[in-house]
Amino acid sequence: MSHFQILVLNGPNLGHIGQRQPEIYGSACMEELCGLLSRIRPDLAERAALRFFQSNHEGALIDRLERARQEVHGVVFNAGALTHTSLALADCLAWIKIPCVEVHLSNVWARPETIRHTTLLAPHCLGVVAGFGLMSYALAAVALCEHLDS
Amino acid sequence: MSHFQILVLNGPNLGHIGQRQPEIYGSACMEELCGLLSRIRPDLAERAALRFFQSNHEGALIDRLERARQEVHGVVFNAGALTHTSLALADCLAWIKIPCVEVHLSNVWARPETIRHTTLLAPHCLGVVAGFGLMSYALAAVALCEHLDS
Amino acid sequence: MSHFQILVLNGPNLGHIGQRQPEIYGSACMEELCGLLSRIRPDLAERAALRFFQSNHEGALIDRLERARQEVHGVVFNAGALTHTSLALADCLAWIKIPCVEVHLSNVWARPETIRHTTLLAPHCLGVVAGFGLMSYALAAVALCEHLDS
Amino acid sequence: MSHFQILVLNGPNLGHIGQRQPEIYGSACMEELCGLLSRIRPDLAERAALRFFQSNHEGALIDRLERARQEVHGVVFNAGALTHTSLALADCLAWIKIPCVEVHLSNVWARPETIRHTTLLAPHCLGVVAGFGLMSYALAAVALCEHLDS
Amino acid sequence: MSHFQILVLNGPNLGHIGQRQPEIYGSACMEELCGLLSRIRPDLAERAALRFFQSNHEGALIDRLERARQEVHGVVFNAGALTHTSLALADCLAWIKIPCVEVHLSNVWARPETIRHTTLLAPHCLGVVAGFGLMSYALAAVALCEHLDS
Amino acid sequence: MSHFQILVLNGPNLGHIGQRQPEIYGSACMEELCGLLSRIRPDLAERAALRFFQSNHEGALIDRLERARQEVHGVVFNAGALTHTSLALADCLAWIKIPCVEVHLSNVWARPETIRHTTLLAPHCLGVVAGFGLMSYALAAVALCEHLDS
Amino acid sequence: MSHFQILVLNGPNLGHIGQRQPEIYGSACMEELCGLLSRIRPDLAERAALRFFQSNHEGALIDRLERARQEVHGVVFNAGALTHTSLALADCLAWIKIPCVEVHLSNVWARPETIRHTTLLAPHCLGVVAGFGLMSYALAAVALCEHLDS
Amino acid sequence: MSHFQILVLNGPNLGHIGQRQPEIYGSACMEELCGLLSRIRPDLAERAALRFFQSNHEGALIDRLERARQEVHGVVFNAGALTHTSLALADCLAWIKIPCVEVHLSNVWARPETIRHTTLLAPHCLGVVAGFGLMSYALAAVALCEHLDS
Amino acid sequence: MSHFQILVLNGPNLGHIGQRQPEIYGSACMEELCGLLSRIRPDLAERAALRFFQSNHEGALIDRLERARQEVHGVVFNAGALTHTSLALADCLAWIKIPCVEVHLSNVWARPETIRHTTLLAPHCLGVVAGFGLMSYALAAVALCEHLDS
Amino acid sequence: MSHFQILVLNGPNLGHIGQRQPEIYGSACMEELCGLLSRIRPDLAERAALRFFQSNHEGALIDRLERARQEVHGVVFNAGALTHTSLALADCLAWIKIPCVEVHLSNVWARPETIRHTTLLAPHCLGVVAGFGLMSYALAAVALCEHLDS
Amino acid sequence: MSHFQILVLNGPNLGHIGQRQPEIYGSACMEELCGLLSRIRPDLAERAALRFFQSNHEGALIDRLERARQEVHGVVFNAGALTHTSLALADCLAWIKIPCVEVHLSNVWARPETIRHTTLLAPHCLGVVAGFGLMSYALAAVALCEHLDS
Amino acid sequence: MSHFQILVLNGPNLGHIGQRQPEIYGSACMEELCGLLSRIRPDLAERAALRFFQSNHEGALIDRLERARQEVHGVVFNAGALTHTSLALADCLAWIKIPCVEVHLSNVWARPETIRHTTLLAPHCLGVVAGFGLMSYALAAVALCEHLDS
Repeated sequence: MSHFQILVLNGPNLGHIGQRQPEIYGSACMEELCGLLSRIRPDLAERAALRFFQSNHEGALIDRLERARQEVHGVVFNAGALTHTSLALADCLAWIKIPCVEVHLSNVWARPETIRHTTLLAPHCLGVVAGFGLMSYALAAVALCEHLDS
Repeated sequence: MSHFQILVLNGPNLGHIGQRQPEIYGSACMEELCGLLSRIRPDLAERAALRFFQSNHEGALIDRLERARQEVHGVVFNAGALTHTSLALADCLAWIKIPCVEVHLSNVWARPETIRHTTLLAPHCLGVVAGFGLMSYALAAVALCEHLDS
Repeated sequence: MSHFQILVLNGPNLGHIGQRQPEIYGSACMEELCGLLSRIRPDLAERAALRFFQSNHEGALIDRLERARQEVHGVVFNAGALTHTSLALADCLAWIKIPCVEVHLSNVWARPETIRHTTLLAPHCLGVVAGFGLMSYALAAVALCEHLDS
Repeated sequence: MSHFQILVLNGPNLGHIGQRQPEIYGSACMEELCGLLSRIRPDLAERAALRFFQSNHEGALIDRLERARQEVHGVVFNAGALTHTSLALADCLAWIKIPCVEVHLSNVWARPETIRHTTLLAPHCLGVVAGFGLMSYALAAVALCEHLDS
Repeated sequence: MSHFQILVLNGPNLGHIGQRQPEIYGSACMEELCGLLSRIRPDLAERAALRFFQSNHEGALIDRLERARQEVHGVVFNAGALTHTSLALADCLAWIKIPCVEVHLSNVWARPETIRHTTLLAPHCLGVVAGFGLMSYALAAVALCEHLDS
Repeated sequence: MSHFQILVLNGPNLGHIGQRQPEIYGSACMEELCGLLSRIRPDLAERAALRFFQSNHEGALIDRLERARQEVHGVVFNAGALTHTSLALADCLAWIKIPCVEVHLSNVWARPETIRHTTLLAPHCLGVVAGFGLMSYALAAVALCEHLDS
Repeated sequence: MSHFQILVLNGPNLGHIGQRQPEIYGSACMEELCGLLSRIRPDLAERAALRFFQSNHEGALIDRLERARQEVHGVVFNAGALTHTSLALADCLAWIKIPCVEVHLSNVWARPETIRHTTLLAPHCLGVVAGFGLMSYALAAVALCEHLDS
Repeated sequence: MSHFQILVLNGPNLGHIGQRQPEIYGSACMEELCGLLSRIRPDLAERAALRFFQSNHEGALIDRLERARQEVHGVVFNAGALTHTSLALADCLAWIKIPCVEVHLSNVWARPETIRHTTLLAPHCLGVVAGFGLMSYALAAVALCEHLDS
Repeated sequence: MSHFQILVLNGPNLGHIGQRQPEIYGSACMEELCGLLSRIRPDLAERAALRFFQSNHEGALIDRLERARQEVHGVVFNAGALTHTSLALADCLAWIKIPCVEVHLSNVWARPETIRHTTLLAPHCLGVVAGFGLMSYALAAVALCEHLDS
Repeated sequence: MSHFQILVLNGPNLGHIGQRQPEIYGSACMEELCGLLSRIRPDLAERAALRFFQSNHEGALIDRLERARQEVHGVVFNAGALTHTSLALADCLAWIKIPCVEVHLSNVWARPETIRHTTLLAPHCLGVVAGFGLMSYALAAVALCEHLDS
Repeated sequence: MSHFQILVLNGPNLGHIGQRQPEIYGSACMEELCGLLSRIRPDLAERAALRFFQSNHEGALIDRLERARQEVHGVVFNAGALTHTSLALADCLAWIKIPCVEVHLSNVWARPETIRHTTLLAPHCLGVVAGFGLMSYALAAVALCEHLDS
Repeated sequence: MSHFQILVLNGPNLGHIGQRQPEIYGSACMEELCGLLSRIRPDLAERAALRFFQSNHEGALIDRLERARQEVHGVVFNAGALTHTSLALADCLAWIKIPCVEVHLSNVWARPETIRHTTLLAPHCLGVVAGFGLMSYALAAVALCEHLDS
């Protein structure tokens, strides 16, 4: 059975999750993701190496994704607010062609601002998981590994 | 540890999945969900009893959800096309107040028709899982059970 | 003086009023309508026989309205969410031509969702009464009887 | 049992009802309202004193509503065309906080101009009665008194 | 030469044509269709067996279309108001893949309501015939048979 | 039985049908229409004389329609792209008042460009036939003759 | 030959024409209108008595129009900015039914703000004259008198 | 005093005024314009030579306007439906820079189709006269001559 | 150093600030403005004479602004709800050309109603100050005086 | 090396370039194009024969393009205002399938009218060159020849 | 009395104010702000330490704001063009919860581009000051200090 | 004859052209531009020194453009996705005032996403060249040099 390199990529304002508006985004912090994955899928947690990268810079996210072409098998991507506004990130996902799952901590379709109901990235992703806090990332990692296995 | 009654509720045109446009919706059929859940989370598969209901009738779905108030702990709900058009289903989820996860076989935000990019139901759900075929249901069931446990 | 057969017709999610989100819809249940009408207009309460029908099915509401052509003099109609989305119900009212009053428990024009500010049915009704809980139905019945008398 | 001071407030072009386009607005004139209320609810007609004010001036309507804070228990308000265009009147209702019912002679939602299907005032009213000519006012007065009693 | 099973499917408010607003929909009733087809195309009338189904229920129309996969060669479909609002019916036509012609009694594009100028179903049909009363059905049946022959 | 003069009028880019994008418009050419009509309705083919006119000039189409007032009993009109953009043609149909049927070779409502889903001409036509290639013209001629007979 | 009472009615910001932005509105003042009319149509100037009224108050304009029902044969009306925003003035013109011509000093359809390209009043007027400074009023008076003569 | 060459230019469907929908466009025909102008302004009628040109072809109107640069002092222009749709005509008026007045027989802003409420031509005209039948042309000619005199 | 006459102009519903919804508009009343200005800029408070005018009538505000041309050097203007709806006030500011600063007690761009995010007046003002309660007026007065000094 | 027949096609209002609004469109006239091409690419100027056609008639442009199928290798096309409004020209380019480059004298995307920012023709062209006056044509010819060579 | 650390934060294209389009943005440069504050509020200038940061990078602005949580009491923020487009900056202000005032050199609501009339940041700010050049910053600092004092 | 410093500036996702989706963007890489320019305009290739800069960071592009004011005579700018979304880049071009040509590898107006049909940058550029792969850059360089020469 193969092993996977998974990039967990976080966009703007996601460098302090756990501290940021916990009533919306939950109180778990990113470091707990490995433990969470181990708990729900110990088999996958062994086979999947998670690499973390966060930046508030759209350009740095694109730089990182371009480098990822040589390095990772899949991406779990929470682009934060850029999900809804960055055509440049969408173009990047379109050409690097690495399997990607879009995730959100909050249920963005339940939030009142309509701008959060559109996603420029999803058309270039396998799928979307939103609304379960850090569990969104864990489920996305599961979906990604199952996809890579198949 | 508690056991959960989970209603897996499917809306119009979801009575024949596996046969319907497999290039969009995948070739797995609904019956395989129990096996899939057992494979990825054997612990939860034991604790969660899945009940299945499918109807092409909006009214029958509402009837079933109203009855569910006495019977189930959570709902995994794929309302199909009604996701995007049925305010009546949205009103129903709003008042029955059973934890619910919206699921889709396909990545609806990657499909070209913009009507599929809006969801009237998500504001009344815990979260959304879309794009992974039958795996969307399995991941939603996991998210639902984790939510009920917490 | 003539007697009236009045159909009190309720659409989706109106089968449990009194239980459903009482902060929006009030705590009175449909059964209390006869008493309420007797209290505010005892004369009309004697002359008007109320028949009740509720369904979560758009089709069943249309079926009932079509039958009503032979049976009733007027309709007090709360179509719930279908008020805003069902062109089929609007077409039905347009052709059966029975005097109808649109009612709502809540003041739909005071609610935040703009979809609730449109009504497809009103163009085929005598008028609209909204925002007074069960009293909306009673006032609508009064208006309907006064109309039938004139 | 308490007595109520009710302000019946009419906006632009409502100074000559009975004469104005009777095919739309009916042929009853405002003076007949007391008689109408006495006929349908003699008990309330005794307890409720109706005060009438009409102006074609938005500002005069706001002036009158501000004075009403010291003088009346409730308002039956037909703002005419200003219903659809006057944010200033809406702001006034928002702050004076006197119970108010929005009324219309005609069924505004059945009229062809879409501008008549929006109401800036309803969000600050108890409810809406439209389409029954002068009877709209009488029913609104009933609803208002019932609300004040409760 | 082959024989055809043709399903003539009618949606809401089409159970009483001939009685319903004859100034819009004509005074012919559905039963006259066989005679009309015989008159204009006696050859086809012999080869094509018409089956009729009408329902006011969206779900029942989907149920019937799903069953039709085993039973009929083509569908003449007047979905009434659902033509303009039912994404679920559109999804059904998309997957059952039976040749279908959309018909309307009236010339829907000549009617004033803009909602009647959109059709969710046409993208999944061979073509559209509208405006000729019951003759629309007859011409659609001709087009369908000619298509099946070719 | 009367005989009919029918004008078959074609707008821009319809001078070379059969050669133009046959995957959209079919491979039959306009000359085959008489034969097609003879095959499906030999009786009508005898009674109806078809006159053909095609122009890429909006003005020439209007000139031709104005002359038609003295010459023909009905028009089968495919205005091509001008269907969706020419208010001048719509105004012409409105005033010449000759019975007209709008036709299209392709199913314009199934094509992806939304501009093709609107028709400025249909409000001034008896009805619409679209999607059946040259057969659309033949069916339109049948509908037109049946209308003229009635 | 009859004599006409013509009301020349001016809305907000039209009390100082000649001083107000002469590059847009011209440098002639309202007093010159009688002279202008005498110069271009001496015959009409003798038969038509012009009465002038200007107010910055929407309500005062409505009051004046309501009084006009007893007093004048026609109205030349420049409502200024209220042309584009006052549904109340539109309703007033609709019911008083005095022949009215809408005028503007400037060519409002040539100005860059799109709000100036809509007029709520024109549907209730005989016609519109715009863009000729004070001459717009004179031409409107001519049109009005010709209309009254016919 | 100078003499003026005035081009009276008419667009599509204006070749038969007097015959075309007289309930909308009036029963006077274009030939009566000289007489009408003589009656209302005999002085101007002597000094202004009217040249007439009508075409149903947008291109022919542009050709004519381009030639007009050498020939006429002003244009009275009724572009008919092209008023609302022809950017090419607007561009032509913009560059030939001959004083032009836009006219309409009917009060286009009072007609129900919103497309008739926009004008692409007015931004390049002195002003607009609409709603007075042939009198619109006469008044426009007066305004044009007065402008040329000043 | 010069002295300034400053008009502090308040529109509808601003006659009772301090009492009106203090959670939105603050609890300070207009009379405190002079004291506030004295505290933050004693030098300007001496040189600037504040005149106050409030009206609920759009027309009265225009009347007052027109008179202001002879009387004041600048205007601090809170038009309340008319900020967003009154083109007549905008036209007035455009022509009287007195330096004006738009102010709001609340941060109108932070309020949920989108109608409050547009301002018709700002294009004719030096600038905007919003969100600081009565301090908005004081800062606007400072900005105005600094502008007049420069 | 092959030789190319290039059609330089100009739409409405482009018959007098050099004279028309030179501040927008430049002062060079179409005749200078050959010289310009010779200067910048003498090699191509020898191999490419330019044919010129201009018309103010949409239909004449379509007629010319249809003839071009037999005659030319490529088209340099400035459709003027029709670029933004003519679906018929777009349909023509779609079916004749001759390589075409869209050109504009001015930088249409820098002009204030938003209608000039859409192009119906570009989807059927190789590319677009805009903003360089007659040089736009020369560069387009270079791009076209390079494309034909490759 | 307390002392305040105030961050003066400038976004893209604000690194060279004074040089950049002085007709829009004024000729004062950022360095003059301290002097300006000292002149208008010497008391506050002593108590408030201004820190300056400018970047053309959205990400760097977010990084700086996140660091500001530990360092400053308030922010005077001119985000330049990002005011209108950056949801990521808005999300940052929402969670760091430092009192912030939005400023603009120019009166953005008076500029013609409508995109400049929306602000994504204001909902997360105390208020807005716009249109007074560098004085906007000074007034914002005053408002911020007064807010911190209260 | 002068020599030119030309900045060839590339935005996000343009660092790997030749590799990125060659079916859309072509297979030539940026390094080939000098050779291409030498081939088509050897004279200009000698006089124009091309400097290259690419970044995925909007801020870095603005930084580079600001520095360019001292260094280059013109810019050939492909901003990639930022063309359609970055008001900050547009503001930068507006103030640095260096002659700039917007280029695109693909014909962006032929691509299906409508967001690619708007350009925020073009209003601040000389012109636009799109659709010819690397040849777009070469033609833009020619246009830029010809502009600088003139």
